[in-house]
Amino acid sequence: MPKFSPLRIISWMALLVAALGIVAQPAMAADAKKPRVVVAVFTKDTARQDLLMRNLQNLHKDRPQATIEVVAFGPGLSLMTRKVDGSDNSMSKSVAALSEAGVKFLACGHTMRAMKISKDDLLPNVGVVPSGIVHVVDRQQEGWAYFAP
Amino acid sequence: MPKFSPLRIISWMALLVAALGIVAQPAMAADAKKPRVVVAVFTKDTARQDLLMRNLQNLHKDRPQATIEVVAFGPGLSLMTRKVDGSDNSMSKSVAALSEAGVKFLACGHTMRAMKISKDDLLPNVGVVPSGIVHVVDRQQEGWAYFAP
Amino acid sequence: MPKFSPLRIISWMALLVAALGIVAQPAMAADAKKPRVVVAVFTKDTARQDLLMRNLQNLHKDRPQATIEVVAFGPGLSLMTRKVDGSDNSMSKSVAALSEAGVKFLACGHTMRAMKISKDDLLPNVGVVPSGIVHVVDRQQEGWAYFAP
Repeated sequence: MPKFSPLRIISWMALLVAALGIVAQPAMAADAKKPRVVVAVFTKDTARQDLLMRNLQNLHKDRPQATIEVVAFGPGLSLMTRKVDGSDNSMSKSVAALSEAGVKFLACGHTMRAMKISKDDLLPNVGVVPSGIVHVVDRQQEGWAYFAP
Repeated sequence: MPKFSPLRIISWMALLVAALGIVAQPAMAADAKKPRVVVAVFTKDTARQDLLMRNLQNLHKDRPQATIEVVAFGPGLSLMTRKVDGSDNSMSKSVAALSEAGVKFLACGHTMRAMKISKDDLLPNVGVVPSGIVHVVDRQQEGWAYFAP
Repeated sequence: MPKFSPLRIISWMALLVAALGIVAQPAMAADAKKPRVVVAVFTKDTARQDLLMRNLQNLHKDRPQATIEVVAFGPGLSLMTRKVDGSDNSMSKSVAALSEAGVKFLACGHTMRAMKISKDDLLPNVGVVPSGIVHVVDRQQEGWAYFAP
């Protein structure tokens, strides 16, 4: 039998692929310690937004390696605008602090068009996704958790 | 060595199975472009139901190949009944339009029994699931995303 | 060729691993009949808490083998305390009944500290998790469904 018979090469390839399959599972389990979560906010109610922000602060403190994205829809966009009903946004400091800690704040582009909110109306560090619902659904289909206080 | 030794057959089988494993992963990634989402509605509040419907219209427009199911619970059933507090349901046109576009609207059977709502009380094209919560949980366990404005 | 050549051993190992991969998939599908769901409650509104409890009763009746955990955040903790605004908690009987049926009720430790609620203030059988959001996110990353009426 020659040293590099097709049979031997095939067997080694099969073993390699099988081994990769085994290695991939502990890798996924390890990811559980690096959780990824997409958070949706639908309400202008500041008590509810406050509950959300305290939860995010706790999550970031307890799981500093977590990947967190917050997506605002409809009235929930008030969490991320500079002005709310003509006054400065009372949540701006906590949004800034969490942004600096790595949390991504994202406004729904469809909502911005519907409510005539421009990029300049948003707090600094707030990003835009073309469609909030598409983003939230895609993230979950990629394996992210969902949270919506 | 004979042409079809057990060893050779086993090796080819192992390679085939391993190859199927590799092929299956891009197939799952491709599914991300055909997202599946189960949407829950719990409220009679029409502003909130309106936010939901606009989100579904956006999702359908941006991801025409998405599979979308909306499940109504308790007071949320008002999204799917012909009459709401004695008047015609103001959401009926948008429910009909999304139904025709392939979105499934499903009423929770437990809620219908509790609120004495019959199949005839529901808008045309609205289906019934025996238990809304079982449906929503099962769908997620099958890999669907969850959304609940 | 010797009876236990490295090539033969490798081939058998590869086949075994590949076979395990095939066997693992039906095992996961079978789990779909034993659904696991983490339920989040954020509101003090008793109509909404009542809707939640009826849904949990239905889920337990229709899927007795389901694993169910309910996590209370912020004002939602009123579902799980002995007293609510000085009066006995009207939900205590249904919480007790579902607890005895195996549903786990869990209070967010961060909320308890913030609201100065002690373990003794909670209904019997209510447990505590250090962080509600970490628990809800971790459960989903482990494959549990999410539900939040």
